[in-house]
Amino acid sequence: MEKVSLGTNAFIFPMPVVLVGTQAMGKANFMTVGWVSRVNASPPMIAVMINKAHYTTPFIVENGTFSVNVPSADMVEKTDYCGLVSGGKVDKSKLFDVFYGSLKTAPMIKECPLCIECRLVKALELPTNDIFIGEIMASYADESRLKDGKPDFKKVNTLLLTMPDNGYWTIGERAGKAWSDGKKLMSKAEKK
Amino acid sequence: MEKVSLGTNAFIFPMPVVLVGTQAMGKANFMTVGWVSRVNASPPMIAVMINKAHYTTPFIVENGTFSVNVPSADMVEKTDYCGLVSGGKVDKSKLFDVFYGSLKTAPMIKECPLCIECRLVKALELPTNDIFIGEIMASYADESRLKDGKPDFKKVNTLLLTMPDNGYWTIGERAGKAWSDGKKLMSKAEKK
Repeated sequence: MEKVSLGTNAFIFPMPVVLVGTQAMGKANFMTVGWVSRVNASPPMIAVMINKAHYTTPFIVENGTFSVNVPSADMVEKTDYCGLVSGGKVDKSKLFDVFYGSLKTAPMIKECPLCIECRLVKALELPTNDIFIGEIMASYADESRLKDGKPDFKKVNTLLLTMPDNGYWTIGERAGKAWSDGKKLMSKAEKK
Repeated sequence: MEKVSLGTNAFIFPMPVVLVGTQAMGKANFMTVGWVSRVNASPPMIAVMINKAHYTTPFIVENGTFSVNVPSADMVEKTDYCGLVSGGKVDKSKLFDVFYGSLKTAPMIKECPLCIECRLVKALELPTNDIFIGEIMASYADESRLKDGKPDFKKVNTLLLTMPDNGYWTIGERAGKAWSDGKKLMSKAEKK
């Protein structure tokens, strides 16, 4: 099959959508972020990539904390709203039911099925974005969205973002088991 | 709703699954990676987070290049296999139909509907993982998976990974439009 060029600004997989929480000028503030990933296994660390111009940016550095909140698909309007309006212009502190963990300055969203509380361990400047790396100090889930103590992703019903078509999506069907399905292709020698 | 603690090793959203390509000892090698994200808007950059012990790690540094290949769900067995066996023990160069772009040392996978060719611009060491940041120099897609020149994500049919349940998933239904659905919550003043 012949390939066609898509240029350099490639967004080629669905991105998880989260709400990043910061304490800003004494109030909880949340922004929508699609560039987020676990970055270290042990200790567990997560990174969020945020454009330097955002209201959130200096407060992550000032507080040395932030939160990562995973909205469910039924929160799509509020989630999108947090990406449309800046905390510098609009008070978003009343938009959600907010709670705090032991870090005190990382506001989290009760309506979100899953919330992560982070301590900033490193910030890295890139040309237009900052990478904020946080050590995960605690995480919180709704018991009703768990199965055997683990998130049941159909119940969590997270949002995914695709670009450049700017689509929100839900998670689909199970397609396999990781660290398992590929064993069929392993030779006897490789299995040893 | 009361929250329960999920501890610090939180994996709370579906992760895009990609195959990272490197040229290793003169051969194409591919490893499965779930920790990947765009990290800079302009110039476009993408990062992959890889455990230091992996065979791939030193070759990204040596070559100063790598590729990010997005498999479709029908490639689940080969994709999982690349995460089960190390290139240090098994030759994975014949597993796929491989092609190269202008960087010469970033092997890409023809069977993958979408491929990105990267030049390493920064490496950051964390305790157990390295963050490799690449500038996107080119990207390639199958024309049959595009719609109006953009990826049609239902046709691309990417894989998602969830942990700690180790599930592969497909993308589900459209749940909304980003930078749009939240406008309903904006006041007249906010829309100005």
